[in-house]
Amino acid sequence: MEIKARTAGLLSAVRKKSPLIHNITNLVVMNSSANILLAVGASPVMAHCRAEVEEMTSLASALVLNIGTLQEDWLESMVRAAKTANAIGIPVVLDPVGAGATRLRTGAVKRIMGECSVSVLRGNCSEILSLGSAEVKTRGVDSSIVLSDQAVEAVARMAEENNCVIGVSGPTDYITDGKHAYRVENGQPIMGRVTGIGCGLSAVVAAFCAVAGGEPTSAVAAAFGFYGLCGDLAIKASDKPGSFQVAFMDWLYSAGDREVGAYLKVTKV
Amino acid sequence: MEIKARTAGLLSAVRKKSPLIHNITNLVVMNSSANILLAVGASPVMAHCRAEVEEMTSLASALVLNIGTLQEDWLESMVRAAKTANAIGIPVVLDPVGAGATRLRTGAVKRIMGECSVSVLRGNCSEILSLGSAEVKTRGVDSSIVLSDQAVEAVARMAEENNCVIGVSGPTDYITDGKHAYRVENGQPIMGRVTGIGCGLSAVVAAFCAVAGGEPTSAVAAAFGFYGLCGDLAIKASDKPGSFQVAFMDWLYSAGDREVGAYLKVTKV
Amino acid sequence: MEIKARTAGLLSAVRKKSPLIHNITNLVVMNSSANILLAVGASPVMAHCRAEVEEMTSLASALVLNIGTLQEDWLESMVRAAKTANAIGIPVVLDPVGAGATRLRTGAVKRIMGECSVSVLRGNCSEILSLGSAEVKTRGVDSSIVLSDQAVEAVARMAEENNCVIGVSGPTDYITDGKHAYRVENGQPIMGRVTGIGCGLSAVVAAFCAVAGGEPTSAVAAAFGFYGLCGDLAIKASDKPGSFQVAFMDWLYSAGDREVGAYLKVTKV
Repeated sequence: MEIKARTAGLLSAVRKKSPLIHNITNLVVMNSSANILLAVGASPVMAHCRAEVEEMTSLASALVLNIGTLQEDWLESMVRAAKTANAIGIPVVLDPVGAGATRLRTGAVKRIMGECSVSVLRGNCSEILSLGSAEVKTRGVDSSIVLSDQAVEAVARMAEENNCVIGVSGPTDYITDGKHAYRVENGQPIMGRVTGIGCGLSAVVAAFCAVAGGEPTSAVAAAFGFYGLCGDLAIKASDKPGSFQVAFMDWLYSAGDREVGAYLKVTKV
Repeated sequence: MEIKARTAGLLSAVRKKSPLIHNITNLVVMNSSANILLAVGASPVMAHCRAEVEEMTSLASALVLNIGTLQEDWLESMVRAAKTANAIGIPVVLDPVGAGATRLRTGAVKRIMGECSVSVLRGNCSEILSLGSAEVKTRGVDSSIVLSDQAVEAVARMAEENNCVIGVSGPTDYITDGKHAYRVENGQPIMGRVTGIGCGLSAVVAAFCAVAGGEPTSAVAAAFGFYGLCGDLAIKASDKPGSFQVAFMDWLYSAGDREVGAYLKVTKV
Repeated sequence: MEIKARTAGLLSAVRKKSPLIHNITNLVVMNSSANILLAVGASPVMAHCRAEVEEMTSLASALVLNIGTLQEDWLESMVRAAKTANAIGIPVVLDPVGAGATRLRTGAVKRIMGECSVSVLRGNCSEILSLGSAEVKTRGVDSSIVLSDQAVEAVARMAEENNCVIGVSGPTDYITDGKHAYRVENGQPIMGRVTGIGCGLSAVVAAFCAVAGGEPTSAVAAAFGFYGLCGDLAIKASDKPGSFQVAFMDWLYSAGDREVGAYLKVTKV
């Protein structure tokens, strides 16, 4: 299926089915991720307590794990929730915020990926590369590394080894499952100046995967493209972060077939 | 007293007295609830640590308990804070976010209502009904059930048994203490597409009750009406969630006697 | 150096170097503080888990400690992070939210200041005075006390005794290290009606100190002045809290030399 039609179809399905997305996410972006999911048309629920995560995941259509502001008991909950998600067959999206910056975070991602099956890993280049064999030291949640040809190869190999889709955010986004790959040219640099925009993308990826029915790679590319496209539209309203964020939320809610048809810049590579 | 005059009087009292509202609330809405209380004219404080909740509640004019993103140690703090509130005679507003979705949440509400006196229970229909004898399974924080005549009766009975006011949010809001009831026609569907709007209403209910002086039912109805009215005004500025939220905050701050007189749609039933 | 040139220089350095600011801050303002730091040009990271705070601080150029919504394990992390900051010689900014309201909070500030070296203490008048010998009872996070001549003297003595800079927010801000002092006339009352604006200032103070190179007092005054100036510009767009907040974020991002030259109201006293 052509990627524009795929994107429009998934967006429409999210709005029609309003899938429940269970988020165990960081304290910084709980509010923004919930609002982003609501704007796109999904139903967010945030729950991290060990006593309820399994029940909550079992009600959901996708699970988002995000390790920003991680603490150990939350990691336990993430593993439990992911195992539940695996058991009932719903997608698990992992956002390795700050992986590479501290042992806690790098170790958390490795533990989750070791014990559970992760459908999608979504991060910036330095976060993703810090999880591979290449030794990369990241600077907090910062995206300081650009995706080189060598990095593209490393990411593809990592996707194949982990049997997952990896989505790398950057000036050009890169999505791969090791066999097929997409490049996304949508998106604006100002999105790096609003906190939670990256984490919100992971949540939207989960919403798209929740309704994707089996072929996740194009669904991840579609989510990246749609999300970046809303940024492209929002920057026309404002290039300053306060009002940009407001316009971005508005476009997540109102962009549809017409905007996808006119502005989506996703190419299979 | 006529409900428009009552609403205007309570709003004016909140702005004049700026009551301190102690919130033990969920991680998603801490920021938005604080901003909503500030916009209305109240003084919010958020504190959940067992070591300080009793001291903090004893400084406050009302207490808000909200079980979204609950964890067990927070529940202990909620019970302690509510007992303090009961001892000093200030209103306790309980928002049973996600009750019915997990045993943790349903159990938490039942424990709080069993051990403490709750003045107001504010939630959507499925959350409220999940606490009664009728078996209702909710879908996260979603409001999927419309208030039937049978439900109205069940809610009234629950209010009477618990000696509290119950405020049910929905297309039409319904407020009852078991003897007297109000219907509120203010409010907009888009309010369900911005996270924390329901939780913020619970906080505003607490602010109105803090200055109500003894008759809480009409104060709850007044808070619902005023809050929905601000949504009715904000939708004139924008029907998209990012800019709607901004306009809504602005109206919470600036709507006054004139707007209450012109637009309040609260009727005693 | 003249304070306007100093302010413009520090602002420019923050935007050029994008210093990593490690925040252990309260649950209400995590999102707003991150956005405020990003808008100003700094790189925020939020991390509070004992298992990683030392590693994270060691990557940072300044540390912010904020005791709103404090819990005991976070206090342990704050002390560890501050000791790391002291060891590597980066500034520590402490925001004593609600000090004076509960023993937990007052005790936390005293413990941090007893065990670690704090570079800057930034709060409102009642919070700051509650930490001195004068007995002051605060009302949550509220700023109810105006800075009297007696208070000015007490604050200066406290700064000298603790070998730190103290920045007191109020109708007129007052910054002192015990020897030198500044008054700042920038800022708007509406800033007290948006949650996290004070906490965000503490974060911006940290960003300015991170690039100040040795003389912190003027850097703190510069941060106060610049921040208030953005409020002065934003109020021209809107005097209501929802849209004011959006405009304020936009100005934090876009105000530069020209605005500092035209509107900064900082005087050495």
